[in-house]
Amino acid sequence: MSQTTRDHFLALDERDPLAPLRDQFTLPPGVIYLDGNSLGALPRATADRLGRAITDEWGTGLIRSWNDAGWVELPARVGAKIGRLLGAGPGEVVAADSTSINLFKVLAAALRLQEDRAPGRRVIVSQRGNFPTDLYIAQGLADLLGRGAAGGYTLRLVDGPDELPHAVDERTAVVLLTQVDYRTGALLAMAKTSALAHEKGALIIWDLAHSAGAIPLDLPGDGADFAIGCGYKYLNGGPGAPAFVWVASRHQEAFWQPLSGWFGHAAPFAFEPDYRPAPGIARYLCGTPAVLSMIALDSGLDTVLAAEARGGMPALRAKSIALTGAFIELVEARCQGHALSLVSPRDPALRGSQASFAAGPELARGYAVMQALIARGVIGDFRAPDVLRFGFTPLYTRFVDVWDAVEILSDILATRSWDAPRFHQRAAVT
Amino acid sequence: MSQTTRDHFLALDERDPLAPLRDQFTLPPGVIYLDGNSLGALPRATADRLGRAITDEWGTGLIRSWNDAGWVELPARVGAKIGRLLGAGPGEVVAADSTSINLFKVLAAALRLQEDRAPGRRVIVSQRGNFPTDLYIAQGLADLLGRGAAGGYTLRLVDGPDELPHAVDERTAVVLLTQVDYRTGALLAMAKTSALAHEKGALIIWDLAHSAGAIPLDLPGDGADFAIGCGYKYLNGGPGAPAFVWVASRHQEAFWQPLSGWFGHAAPFAFEPDYRPAPGIARYLCGTPAVLSMIALDSGLDTVLAAEARGGMPALRAKSIALTGAFIELVEARCQGHALSLVSPRDPALRGSQASFAAGPELARGYAVMQALIARGVIGDFRAPDVLRFGFTPLYTRFVDVWDAVEILSDILATRSWDAPRFHQRAAVT
Repeated sequence: MSQTTRDHFLALDERDPLAPLRDQFTLPPGVIYLDGNSLGALPRATADRLGRAITDEWGTGLIRSWNDAGWVELPARVGAKIGRLLGAGPGEVVAADSTSINLFKVLAAALRLQEDRAPGRRVIVSQRGNFPTDLYIAQGLADLLGRGAAGGYTLRLVDGPDELPHAVDERTAVVLLTQVDYRTGALLAMAKTSALAHEKGALIIWDLAHSAGAIPLDLPGDGADFAIGCGYKYLNGGPGAPAFVWVASRHQEAFWQPLSGWFGHAAPFAFEPDYRPAPGIARYLCGTPAVLSMIALDSGLDTVLAAEARGGMPALRAKSIALTGAFIELVEARCQGHALSLVSPRDPALRGSQASFAAGPELARGYAVMQALIARGVIGDFRAPDVLRFGFTPLYTRFVDVWDAVEILSDILATRSWDAPRFHQRAAVT
Repeated sequence: MSQTTRDHFLALDERDPLAPLRDQFTLPPGVIYLDGNSLGALPRATADRLGRAITDEWGTGLIRSWNDAGWVELPARVGAKIGRLLGAGPGEVVAADSTSINLFKVLAAALRLQEDRAPGRRVIVSQRGNFPTDLYIAQGLADLLGRGAAGGYTLRLVDGPDELPHAVDERTAVVLLTQVDYRTGALLAMAKTSALAHEKGALIIWDLAHSAGAIPLDLPGDGADFAIGCGYKYLNGGPGAPAFVWVASRHQEAFWQPLSGWFGHAAPFAFEPDYRPAPGIARYLCGTPAVLSMIALDSGLDTVLAAEARGGMPALRAKSIALTGAFIELVEARCQGHALSLVSPRDPALRGSQASFAAGPELARGYAVMQALIARGVIGDFRAPDVLRFGFTPLYTRFVDVWDAVEILSDILATRSWDAPRFHQRAAVT
């Protein structure tokens, strides 16, 4: 970087066509928020929208609002907005439940599809570094299915994507991958990896927790079979926002997933004793949708879709690459000799919207460094055992934030101010 | 009823020690709300509480609020409040997901427990009239498990509880019942029915959707094994509020349920690749909790717990019986000859907090009658094929509401004003 001045970064913000989108959010003063990959910031419109939903739709409309306020259509309506970010066709996405629950649904569906067309495939391949809940859900389902005499499913974990060509074979039922590694930010090529799975006769499930709203996606074009993802990160849906599920049209009606609750029934209000799956993606719904959380997610999605008039996902992606690239370059230039080493891919084409550094033993593995940063208003997060993780949300992160965050980080390192007892106290959620 | 005047009902309200609790709610003017068994009314405190959670906890606290605002403890903290209504011991309840999802968890756990201790029991017994989502979930799980060569599970449906002594036998793994029938309001005796299941070596799961907050409960004392229920009915948690799950202490650690997401892990933020269930009921959590919906549920629960200073659940139950009894008596006295017949048990000991009437063909099976009532501000609901359902929530329903509702109903029937074309148009949600 030739221009290592704050003014240079201010100038980048002035030229940034996406800069006005930041006004959609309320961000606390004195905070540089680099954790939108964990919990997206609060959209300015959300409090009012939810307030109206509570007061008018719930308080006044009461039960009538299932029809009159369209609550019953929220999973499909919110899902359709998410679908625009995934390259999905109409009716391919619903918002529902949590990412973990949705993974259970699609993994059960994928295993059943394979059992019907290629029995004997009993291995689920994933990455050891996949977000743990994905592995836990796969373990739970494999355990549940594995008691039958037909023999159990096993979960085979690879250390990195390089091992996939070897690990995926004629015994593989499903490949389960998170596109962007939550720790390192490494980004998998969806088309190539999906093709690899298909060549071996496997189906592929993509967890898009760190992709949706951050990476331009074309699920049908890139050959995905199933996808799930999270509403509370780049979609700004609020803490614990409903998640989403996408199923390729070709698979939707092949199976009814086992979390077959009444909202996935063809006629939920006919109160029939036998389950009949709804046509299409609606069969991936289960119980009554969490209306209030769904409305907050709807509001969050509008902040992302507002970028469509300014270049959309490709423009967000270009800014994301510029932000993470500048951050990496500045940290490496200004924090040299402080035992920070980049764990995110240096090639922007292989990197999601985050930059992660491993902290060495000289920095006590980094936990206290992150606490010191947070105390100075730079909010990233720490991922055990030693990762300082900084997420960049181009909707509201400015170039000058990159400069200021590194300024504060380099000061904390130079003065060793992180090494105070209070910064070493572990919180419940790290 | 000797006193058939409106003044008599006003006098009952004046003497009612629970009457002040109505002030906890905002109810629209001109509405008599008799559908709190479907969606509880809006607590006055909820909009502000959720507004502060959005603005302060999410907007300002951002990711820090998982610790600082205690978001991470919400499932247990809200669960403990629910536990007070169930007679549960500490650490026996969590709030999470939906009723359907929670049923899947406990049904899977119950079947596994049985498989371990009494293999060969492959029948789930339930009622044909059980709320459909319970049957659908049982079908989904049985289908999932049934593919193994060990042989499938079957769902055996009885028409009524009288058949249970015959239907529950040495092949029965689990009895799955909803304590209060959603259509008729018929209330099952929990202790007696649980004992019946246990005598035959079966486990019993209770769906408390229409019980929690309406009926005094003592789950451990009444021998329940598992229970699930709904946050948006008598708990006033808002549309699609999180549900709850209770597991008897003796069963909690016997099995990890298969929806084994990261919030049910012993150390969710250690990000270990292998699932290790949390101790106790926390293993019944799955994905990230829906924080905003959970806070609304927390607020709703406070309106129910406020009754503790005024006699608690027994006082609420006594008022509920008085309300439903008066309603039944008035309808039968004042709507005679109009093809309405009581389908709820006449004996209050056998009746939940609702009164349901079947409408004959002379009333076109009742759908239009309910629409006409709603147009006049009396909000109950219709359950196919012919049930007019009226729920009574003693927290906010007044005795005079009973009088006024019947007054309007008898006028609608006498004038046949229900038989207008607009009242026959079916809405998506009935």
